[in-house]
Amino acid sequence: MSQQVAGVTLRDVQRPVAAELEQVVDELRRLIAAHFPIASEVNEHLLRMKGKLFRPTLLLLSSKAAGSTDTRANTLAAVVELIHLATLVHDDSVDHSVLRRGLPTINALFSHQIAVIMGDYLYSRAIIELVKLDDREALRVLARVTNEMTVGEMRQLEAHDKLAYGESAYDELIRAKTASLLSGACEVGALTAPPAFRHALARFGMLLGMAFQITDDVLDYTQPEAVTGKPSGLDLREHKVTLPLIAALARLPADGRRVVERLMNAAEPSDDLVAEVIRLVEAAGGLETARRRALDLAQQAEAELEVLPPSAARDALQGSIAYAVERRS
Amino acid sequence: MSQQVAGVTLRDVQRPVAAELEQVVDELRRLIAAHFPIASEVNEHLLRMKGKLFRPTLLLLSSKAAGSTDTRANTLAAVVELIHLATLVHDDSVDHSVLRRGLPTINALFSHQIAVIMGDYLYSRAIIELVKLDDREALRVLARVTNEMTVGEMRQLEAHDKLAYGESAYDELIRAKTASLLSGACEVGALTAPPAFRHALARFGMLLGMAFQITDDVLDYTQPEAVTGKPSGLDLREHKVTLPLIAALARLPADGRRVVERLMNAAEPSDDLVAEVIRLVEAAGGLETARRRALDLAQQAEAELEVLPPSAARDALQGSIAYAVERRS
Repeated sequence: MSQQVAGVTLRDVQRPVAAELEQVVDELRRLIAAHFPIASEVNEHLLRMKGKLFRPTLLLLSSKAAGSTDTRANTLAAVVELIHLATLVHDDSVDHSVLRRGLPTINALFSHQIAVIMGDYLYSRAIIELVKLDDREALRVLARVTNEMTVGEMRQLEAHDKLAYGESAYDELIRAKTASLLSGACEVGALTAPPAFRHALARFGMLLGMAFQITDDVLDYTQPEAVTGKPSGLDLREHKVTLPLIAALARLPADGRRVVERLMNAAEPSDDLVAEVIRLVEAAGGLETARRRALDLAQQAEAELEVLPPSAARDALQGSIAYAVERRS
Repeated sequence: MSQQVAGVTLRDVQRPVAAELEQVVDELRRLIAAHFPIASEVNEHLLRMKGKLFRPTLLLLSSKAAGSTDTRANTLAAVVELIHLATLVHDDSVDHSVLRRGLPTINALFSHQIAVIMGDYLYSRAIIELVKLDDREALRVLARVTNEMTVGEMRQLEAHDKLAYGESAYDELIRAKTASLLSGACEVGALTAPPAFRHALARFGMLLGMAFQITDDVLDYTQPEAVTGKPSGLDLREHKVTLPLIAALARLPADGRRVVERLMNAAEPSDDLVAEVIRLVEAAGGLETARRRALDLAQQAEAELEVLPPSAARDALQGSIAYAVERRS
């Protein structure tokens, strides 16, 4: 929890809502509780996996920064994390991932079957809670977001011609699979605030989410396994085409392209081949272009905050941008 | 679509709402439509799979029988079928099933990954539509039902000591995995009707659903593959303990029990072993006991309809009971 980054730690970002985040964890525990033995085992594991609570943090900070006094914010924050967990559980199952944040995934620890049903269980619990809160707008935003996430996942699966996958398809994908939920978290935090604040925060979350995902995709190229909890170059191993490669491909000479093609055609690319493609992407400036794009989005996100009155929460939202693009894991 | 049963065909049951059911299919098509290429392929397949529209039929008949004039009934009926399809897609994926109603399953035809995400997509589309209808009660009922279905599935997966699985656990399971959605369909059809009608129809659906599932479980023992579209004795092959076996086990002598144990311990039981257990269950009266239980539930379901004023729709609901317990596939 103490990820040291260049300037801003996650702890700094979370300071204005530290007390609320403790209640969010209690809420999360209440929401996941179930009356069947295996569920409590699975749930204990999920609570350990919950990690950074980045989405609840954004929701609570948005709520404060927009001057909202909605007492349901803690529950909504827990619901957003629940939806995130449901998505992770299904994603890991779809990807056959064995590790998540250094811990075994539900599909690895229990079974593929349990992961599918557990994801359904968590998502339906989130909906039940939203219906109880009787917050139609929150439900509307989060149902739309969940649907967008599934469309994003589907698009990723159906991208067959890997090397033809371009920047606009990538943008659409990261918007759907990552940025939409961050945007939803910010927007739901500000539902009772003036519309100008609500819409600025929704846009802020979208831009922040895109910058966040691009940074993730760069880290996949640059960080050793010990830091991220997953093997370096994992996206390449799984034939996932992200911005660093897209940017590099536009500049690679024919022989470099052929090496990339060789990797995309190898069912299980060797460590050497992965390392070679990483070097090619780096040398062609792919990582640099991706980093610049993330910083550009970060600046746009920062501009969206200008409409909000100055506050510790607004400062923390600003800090969350730095955290998103400067983190090392 | 022309399943001939002893007295009542599904077509008879559907007669009072035949026009509405055509609109339900259009609604379903509208709800599933998506703007990514693979989705339309998958969805065409789902629409072929949709089969009997039994849940929409129950919703529309309940609505008419309760004197409700809710114009949203067609959309609600499509949403209920959508939730049912989402569940089927995930169930088939969890069970690694390759056939459903004689057609290949989504996981078999496309991939396991696509099945998981497609199920999520369908379910989130259903929620979006319920939010649009602004029908909080329908959302409340169907969110609860979906959650119950996941809990039921989870309970089934965690039942390790197969032979200790008793009748009350079985009842809880069939209530959760089948009857709750049938009950929800009937209740949602009558949401704007007087509470006495609404509650009677909710109970009717629950009893009907249990009778329906027990009949399914008996058919699994008795029907050849050509009729059901899946191999006979499939539940036994998959080590699923249902009422015929539970009832037989209570009466089987030690040597018969040992044969059942042998089947439960075999990763892939031989055709001969499956056939032998089917004979044992039949001889011990397991099928007869299960059939009697289904008929008893059917009678209770029928009694719930007495509170409703006489109508063609009420007669058709009565007919649906006969259809549920007398069908051959």
